[in-house]
Amino acid sequence: MPKYDAEAVRALIARRRPGHALEGAFYTDPEIFRADIDAIFHQHWIYVAVECEVPEPGDALAVDIGASSVVIVRGDDEQVRAFHNVCRHRGARLLPPGPSIVGNLVCPYHAWTYGLDGDLKFAEHMGDGFDPSCHGLRPVAMRSVGGLLFICLAETPPDDIDDLARQIEPYLAPHDLRNTRVAHSADLVEYGNWKLVMENNRECYHCTPNHPELTIPLFAYGFGFAPEELTPEGQEQAARYETLRQTSHAAWEEAGLPSRLIEHLDDRPTGFRTERLPLDGAGESQTMDTMAACRVPLGSISDKAAGGLHFWTQPNSWHHFMSDHVVTFTALPLDEGRTLVRTKWLVHKDAVEGVDYDLEKLTDIWNVTNRQDADLVEMTQRGVADPAYVPGPYSPYTEGLVEKFMLWYLARLRAHLG
Amino acid sequence: MPKYDAEAVRALIARRRPGHALEGAFYTDPEIFRADIDAIFHQHWIYVAVECEVPEPGDALAVDIGASSVVIVRGDDEQVRAFHNVCRHRGARLLPPGPSIVGNLVCPYHAWTYGLDGDLKFAEHMGDGFDPSCHGLRPVAMRSVGGLLFICLAETPPDDIDDLARQIEPYLAPHDLRNTRVAHSADLVEYGNWKLVMENNRECYHCTPNHPELTIPLFAYGFGFAPEELTPEGQEQAARYETLRQTSHAAWEEAGLPSRLIEHLDDRPTGFRTERLPLDGAGESQTMDTMAACRVPLGSISDKAAGGLHFWTQPNSWHHFMSDHVVTFTALPLDEGRTLVRTKWLVHKDAVEGVDYDLEKLTDIWNVTNRQDADLVEMTQRGVADPAYVPGPYSPYTEGLVEKFMLWYLARLRAHLG
Amino acid sequence: MPKYDAEAVRALIARRRPGHALEGAFYTDPEIFRADIDAIFHQHWIYVAVECEVPEPGDALAVDIGASSVVIVRGDDEQVRAFHNVCRHRGARLLPPGPSIVGNLVCPYHAWTYGLDGDLKFAEHMGDGFDPSCHGLRPVAMRSVGGLLFICLAETPPDDIDDLARQIEPYLAPHDLRNTRVAHSADLVEYGNWKLVMENNRECYHCTPNHPELTIPLFAYGFGFAPEELTPEGQEQAARYETLRQTSHAAWEEAGLPSRLIEHLDDRPTGFRTERLPLDGAGESQTMDTMAACRVPLGSISDKAAGGLHFWTQPNSWHHFMSDHVVTFTALPLDEGRTLVRTKWLVHKDAVEGVDYDLEKLTDIWNVTNRQDADLVEMTQRGVADPAYVPGPYSPYTEGLVEKFMLWYLARLRAHLG
Repeated sequence: MPKYDAEAVRALIARRRPGHALEGAFYTDPEIFRADIDAIFHQHWIYVAVECEVPEPGDALAVDIGASSVVIVRGDDEQVRAFHNVCRHRGARLLPPGPSIVGNLVCPYHAWTYGLDGDLKFAEHMGDGFDPSCHGLRPVAMRSVGGLLFICLAETPPDDIDDLARQIEPYLAPHDLRNTRVAHSADLVEYGNWKLVMENNRECYHCTPNHPELTIPLFAYGFGFAPEELTPEGQEQAARYETLRQTSHAAWEEAGLPSRLIEHLDDRPTGFRTERLPLDGAGESQTMDTMAACRVPLGSISDKAAGGLHFWTQPNSWHHFMSDHVVTFTALPLDEGRTLVRTKWLVHKDAVEGVDYDLEKLTDIWNVTNRQDADLVEMTQRGVADPAYVPGPYSPYTEGLVEKFMLWYLARLRAHLG
Repeated sequence: MPKYDAEAVRALIARRRPGHALEGAFYTDPEIFRADIDAIFHQHWIYVAVECEVPEPGDALAVDIGASSVVIVRGDDEQVRAFHNVCRHRGARLLPPGPSIVGNLVCPYHAWTYGLDGDLKFAEHMGDGFDPSCHGLRPVAMRSVGGLLFICLAETPPDDIDDLARQIEPYLAPHDLRNTRVAHSADLVEYGNWKLVMENNRECYHCTPNHPELTIPLFAYGFGFAPEELTPEGQEQAARYETLRQTSHAAWEEAGLPSRLIEHLDDRPTGFRTERLPLDGAGESQTMDTMAACRVPLGSISDKAAGGLHFWTQPNSWHHFMSDHVVTFTALPLDEGRTLVRTKWLVHKDAVEGVDYDLEKLTDIWNVTNRQDADLVEMTQRGVADPAYVPGPYSPYTEGLVEKFMLWYLARLRAHLG
Repeated sequence: MPKYDAEAVRALIARRRPGHALEGAFYTDPEIFRADIDAIFHQHWIYVAVECEVPEPGDALAVDIGASSVVIVRGDDEQVRAFHNVCRHRGARLLPPGPSIVGNLVCPYHAWTYGLDGDLKFAEHMGDGFDPSCHGLRPVAMRSVGGLLFICLAETPPDDIDDLARQIEPYLAPHDLRNTRVAHSADLVEYGNWKLVMENNRECYHCTPNHPELTIPLFAYGFGFAPEELTPEGQEQAARYETLRQTSHAAWEEAGLPSRLIEHLDDRPTGFRTERLPLDGAGESQTMDTMAACRVPLGSISDKAAGGLHFWTQPNSWHHFMSDHVVTFTALPLDEGRTLVRTKWLVHKDAVEGVDYDLEKLTDIWNVTNRQDADLVEMTQRGVADPAYVPGPYSPYTEGLVEKFMLWYLARLRAHLG
């Protein structure tokens, strides 16, 4: 019944070759998966929702994170809180996954009734010896970072979330996330280990061969290249991109849009990275025609061509903030070979579908790109499960951020195993 | 290849807090599940069928109990016997699950042919050195208790089945089970551990919030309440129920229907409980209108309003005997997170569907109640699998029989582990 | 994370009773399954395809063997080679299962490009320190035996494949496999351990009770019987068969068709067996009417009534060569309880469907027989998984070749465990 052999996991970590993908066991062994859940997903800040999903008192959202489930609910005092979605009586789930509107949190089984602050208000037939004050819902640490809700299942969550919030909130603030709403949400089960999903997300080396749609707005040169390999034409394009990046940053910062790179991927528990990236074509949005998909601008942004602010967190989220909409992603492990990728598209709360935006135009580039990435993740999962697989080298130019993800992951895993 | 770590199971048993639900591992760990199969389902009397399902010589019924399968067959001498459904040659199943009519038991693979008494009568090509008398079907202990067939997979079954039969048969006799037939049978896979299915069955605390149909005939007060919490109206209802129970018991016993409580849930291997309970409304049957669903009465019962005799056995069966029909239930574990609940509705063997009873009226209250219970079991299975789950207290008033189920289970498990 | 407990496997091997089926664990325990993959499927020659499936340079075929996958590809030099289907960068599969036509082998993920000889020709962004010559595809041992392609995943494959080829190729040569093509291919997942699939294939004791179609062309007496049990009619039939076999062998050998039994099932790593067997009726083919299904004869065979040459290999293939068509089978383990049986029907490469042969007539006898065998395997898998299963004796007359399969298997397993 032990969940994993810590000694064996430590040995695997110790023999990892720097700059290379991991051995197959990291992606396929159920024991490593259980260690990942313990050491990574139960100890770190996990992005789960947007504050605008629970706008009013009594609005609740249940989110499953593997075997765990968390209820996020706005109280009558307007505070948003998070609780374990587990009744203190016999353990039944209080709410099904997804949104609910509630007066109290009433367990469906025996009607134990909790207030929106988690206190047990009512439990029938429990007799005199029963103390309701010892049977409130177990709270979960939660933190809104500019409107993005992160939870942490650990007793003592990493406190560097404060520094993250301090640094990132000025970047997010112009997009005014609290005045958005979810225009669309899509759950995609990818048939690969969660780390393959993350490795895939942390490089654009695969973009040119695989993402013909995404590379319309996104510059392939934005995430690294081998300079000595460039053709004269390639050199010209790379130079054009670098100039655009610098002039855009200067103009955006001048206009009150923080844009310059901040990168703390592997030097802290709550690793993150952000940078506002120029987009190609009209430069407005991650859409097929590079133009804004929604007519109602977000927050205080007057220039449509505000590029795409990307914001990554370790272990498992990434986000794109544009002038007209936001796309957020979270990767939630299901088992060693399956990961749920949940994507949400946010628009201004007053934007009307069919009037201010066309849902298909808003969502198609990431729907098709997610599907392409899911295929890549699946064929890689099959390959790394092959006994003949040997980890190959990461490109020093295009996979440096994958290596940083791995360094972070291995350090966090080792830290937890002690 | 060891099935479970007995030391770890003993440690889990030892730290169980009395009066509380079990730790999550008991419901989710595959090792505990294997211990349950070994210690509970392979050592105790398991209700599997009704004698009337094999009325004639050559009538056979194969019943799967997890990985085990048992053939029940009536021989030419009218005796009903049980055998392991495993050919003594290469191991093939002799019969598919469910009913068959057979002359001999012929293995489909190489046509080894067994008599209805289990003897190997014929096996081609086995040569002179082969002794058929050493290759008969392996018998399984079987016992009819008033027409309910129990099997036991152990070499030495608990002998307290004799005392159980002696006590319970007078209660069942008036319903004359041997002159019934199965009007309907339904298999429902519940997505929860078998113990959650049983805990659910052993209390009616959840009835009021969840079973609007079942509580039409069934008194919610029949399975306990906290007296100090009752409103004046509740006190009046509880008093009315208690009076009804006592006067009904007296009248029924006078009329030859044994009715008073016998409870031996946790003081023996083959725990059981019985009591004839008054029903609400017309008081005749567990139906939506509380009236008999079948016009042909069972056995010797002249008064339709004979209430509902309930009969429970440990580990896994429960039954309701009314004047017009009987409903029997058995819970068969599939794996740590799935349990098959098999329900059978019995009517008098001469009752004609569409003439003497309407099948939907006969079955709807338990079909809908089973579905509700399956949902409760599933949401509880998810909750107890959550790392944040901590076992809560049972109600001393409404969950005392759940506690008795648990005391029985833990004692039996400990006894087997030694 | 260890794959299996070698000591426990050795103990199970040691207590096996000769002449009897194996204990249930051999068929159901995931540890034994992993030992089988390691000791059997990763160490021996596995039949995977026919050379005619990759007729031209650039023709490729990817074959999954459990978690392994192999690419078979014909190079510009006309050589057929095999490689692990795993990119040397991040491990992605290069080709999906089944046939492809390729110029180079290009990984879909980051476009690493390998030549048809496996050399890495191109990998972008890898920088100066990267040596492509260290990152070619990993080769897999491959051998064509008269046009049947066998691969071996071991570093040092058994060298007795040379002797096998020397002995068997004269038998296969008249059927000229290199001038055939695949008329039809069928994948069937059988719900049983791979050894049950093989045991089923190595005896015809089950044919009379189960294969009414196959026993039209195939003599039930061809694979053994208990002489003392025969009726006078049976004795006559057995004598007729034996005479037919001897006269046919003499005539076929005279006509240049090697026919006599060669059997090396259990005396070497690459066990095999062959014999040309007379067929009943017209004696031409394994069809419902015993006549040739295809009008275009194979190779140099002038007499349609050339019987059915059977060729078996250990661990997992069997083949039937007739004058008009060939049927090949390979059994590939999926997990301890599931096995993929892949069947291919070959006809002369110039034969035209609908003109020279009717596809249904060509395939129906083995389609229906495979389905019957799959049912037998499934009911046996369920039976051997029953705790009440005890291994029974093999018939000394009809299951001698099953015993040889088992002796081979156990010896190979023991040899690998050391």
